[in-house]
Amino acid sequence: MTGTTQRTTQDWQAADSAHFLHPFTDFQGLARKGARIITEADNIYLRDSDGHRILDAMSGLWCVNVGYGQRALVDAAATQMQQLPFYNAFFQTATPPAIALAEKLAEVTPPQFQHVFFSGSGSEGNDTVVRMVRRYWDVLGQPARQVIISRHNAYHGSTMAGASLGGMSGMHAQGGLPIPNITHIDQPYWVEHKLPGETMDAFGIRAAGWLEAKILAIGADKVAAFIGEPVQGAGGVIIPPATYWPEIQRICDRHGILLVSDEVICGFGRTGHWFGCETMGFRPDLMTFAKGVTSGYIPLGGVMVGDRVAKVLIEQGGEFEHGYTYSGHPVACAVALANIKIIQDQNLVGHVHDDVGPYLAEAFALLGEHPLVGAAETCGLMGALLLVQDKATLKPFDAAVGIGMVCRGHCFANGLIMRAVGNRMIIAPPLVITRAQIDEMAALIRRCLDLTLADVRRHGWL
Amino acid sequence: MTGTTQRTTQDWQAADSAHFLHPFTDFQGLARKGARIITEADNIYLRDSDGHRILDAMSGLWCVNVGYGQRALVDAAATQMQQLPFYNAFFQTATPPAIALAEKLAEVTPPQFQHVFFSGSGSEGNDTVVRMVRRYWDVLGQPARQVIISRHNAYHGSTMAGASLGGMSGMHAQGGLPIPNITHIDQPYWVEHKLPGETMDAFGIRAAGWLEAKILAIGADKVAAFIGEPVQGAGGVIIPPATYWPEIQRICDRHGILLVSDEVICGFGRTGHWFGCETMGFRPDLMTFAKGVTSGYIPLGGVMVGDRVAKVLIEQGGEFEHGYTYSGHPVACAVALANIKIIQDQNLVGHVHDDVGPYLAEAFALLGEHPLVGAAETCGLMGALLLVQDKATLKPFDAAVGIGMVCRGHCFANGLIMRAVGNRMIIAPPLVITRAQIDEMAALIRRCLDLTLADVRRHGWL
Repeated sequence: MTGTTQRTTQDWQAADSAHFLHPFTDFQGLARKGARIITEADNIYLRDSDGHRILDAMSGLWCVNVGYGQRALVDAAATQMQQLPFYNAFFQTATPPAIALAEKLAEVTPPQFQHVFFSGSGSEGNDTVVRMVRRYWDVLGQPARQVIISRHNAYHGSTMAGASLGGMSGMHAQGGLPIPNITHIDQPYWVEHKLPGETMDAFGIRAAGWLEAKILAIGADKVAAFIGEPVQGAGGVIIPPATYWPEIQRICDRHGILLVSDEVICGFGRTGHWFGCETMGFRPDLMTFAKGVTSGYIPLGGVMVGDRVAKVLIEQGGEFEHGYTYSGHPVACAVALANIKIIQDQNLVGHVHDDVGPYLAEAFALLGEHPLVGAAETCGLMGALLLVQDKATLKPFDAAVGIGMVCRGHCFANGLIMRAVGNRMIIAPPLVITRAQIDEMAALIRRCLDLTLADVRRHGWL
Repeated sequence: MTGTTQRTTQDWQAADSAHFLHPFTDFQGLARKGARIITEADNIYLRDSDGHRILDAMSGLWCVNVGYGQRALVDAAATQMQQLPFYNAFFQTATPPAIALAEKLAEVTPPQFQHVFFSGSGSEGNDTVVRMVRRYWDVLGQPARQVIISRHNAYHGSTMAGASLGGMSGMHAQGGLPIPNITHIDQPYWVEHKLPGETMDAFGIRAAGWLEAKILAIGADKVAAFIGEPVQGAGGVIIPPATYWPEIQRICDRHGILLVSDEVICGFGRTGHWFGCETMGFRPDLMTFAKGVTSGYIPLGGVMVGDRVAKVLIEQGGEFEHGYTYSGHPVACAVALANIKIIQDQNLVGHVHDDVGPYLAEAFALLGEHPLVGAAETCGLMGALLLVQDKATLKPFDAAVGIGMVCRGHCFANGLIMRAVGNRMIIAPPLVITRAQIDEMAALIRRCLDLTLADVRRHGWL
């Protein structure tokens, strides 16, 4: 990188404000404050331009599953880039890395998945899902099946279609969203929706029932698909009751509706299985992926197309009028192959399932005893702490306090990347994290909770 | 790449058919035939798994501007990937390569562009445009300005919004497209629309007038923006008359409508200036880019945001609720910086403008004398040959003949990648092409035209 090391933090910040419009950012607000400049990383640690060492408990943005500094990924990229940096797959051509990755994905995904449609990101993957499920029903002679049902507070990317599938009200308020024929049901979030005395299992069944109610309201013959993240990520690591997804599966089966699992965050080991649908016990027809497929070292996404849909599109579909320049990009595919090899060779899925996943759950259980924490939940290597004013009643802080952002501020100042979603503090560290590093992370989290509690007491927010 | 070299072509094809759903492809048709496997490339030449050498006159897919095998791009990727393979720009953080690239883009783009919003592709860039132009008008208190006007036969990507902006009827026929508030006018294609006796200049003014007619029909207070490729690429290298774009500019100015240039294909030297809008003489408010920014070595796209829009979004917009995980991906940005350095150091823009662009025009003028060619047109290093049944009247072949695909078949069989769009044979070779290589390419094209003419005569298509 030209001139990376020669500049001061202030110089970088000035150039940043002058030219770089950051995603999901108040540009003027950031300019006033100045961005933090991340300059290097290794394993689970970042370093900024002021030399601070930071434990990245968010894996970049839920993506650096194998951690930073993996030489094998660098070598795979360099080798492929020198040999063939790009070729398209449009005009009856293919490249070896794209084919080999398609084959490998068929191996590591559930058995119904033998085909892949590549995109460059999770957004493009979910955008593809919208067109693909509608095309499927068109080909089957049921063109009225246009509606896709999703959930409030879901995140399915930021293209117009992806953001429409998502249930983020802030995004829907800008740019003419959502597009037609996408509708939402409530999320299976017990803190908001569980009734007094209701068991988690009963709540899960009831929450899944909202899907059936919606299907019946619309008319099943107008519904194309249901889409959901096994565990909602950007929504705040919302882990559904164990009964939820199997019931969703039964409802989709009953009405013949396609079931789509958005595995952009949950895929590639995050939940302790290769894919979140395996952890949650359901069998999707389509599966979106991105992030963990390359550990974010190079952009890549796609849709796993299950046999039910693939058979129709292949045998009866004719030309599917859709694709991206970078669909099956050879360098991205080569990096994905090297990344999956690390996940396999180092048994990272087993590491999460049997070792650090349970260990994180224990560490979070202890953090759950903190006076500010109303609930501590984990699933594999995703975790959330619910910050509350009152542990017994789970009474929330006044929204004006911005308790999550207060806590996040302490995290950033204390060398820890942890994300705030409303009053939920969330993590998703690299899968290579060790028990000792989980101890280190938990100690940092505890310190930041203590500092947040001190703020709460000082400002009288209790 | 694991196992790249050990497999036979048949093995690759079998794995390809079993697992890889190609973009814009009839899957079953491809499976019957078997894909061609591209295994390596250097400069402007590809090699396939059977050892054939192929001259790539399409730069991969309009993207490999600096040619294959550029070691500096490989080194930039490897160095950055080892140091910091990923970090996000969401949470008040940035990385040096993203900042440096934003700064560099401000330098090489027209002076009104000082800010960039990064995406991972041209599709995501154009999708961003839809949300950004509507947000701009919302912030200014004119939320009724929702409509975006584009052109039939335009190509603006394959997300739902991108494909809606595009004017490809085949794409609109699948998946519930277009989304609302996007409408289209006719393209400035003289073969279809010029009146007998009309000069090209007069035709250009008249074609631009279709925009004003559309604006008046909708009501200017409902129109947000007009978007167009300076030269339509995937539509068949449709080069508008010189009068067209300046008149489009005047119309947009008159009605206060934002003007968006889709530079995904035309950008980074393709037309003999850095950007197509400079070649065509207009001053856009927003500019989408992708492809040539990294020469396709790694996925990257974005939107250049002109001062008019940037000022409003920065000073009055608050948080712009949009972004991609890979917005400002450090490795992609590092590769883009190395790519732009090659374009600058080797003066590739001047090379196209002063040397190989004019030389290609001469070569095409000679090809224009071929009995099958009704018109030969170039703009910088884009070119198109119109195949006709009758040179004098430009009478087209019967569509059932598929004359373009017949010619493309000969190209593929004779070591030349040339694309067919209907009856237009098109090229866009790497900018590093030499005069000697243009001679080689032109000789291949002539041979394929001759073979096509022989088919025409043999089958009695004349």
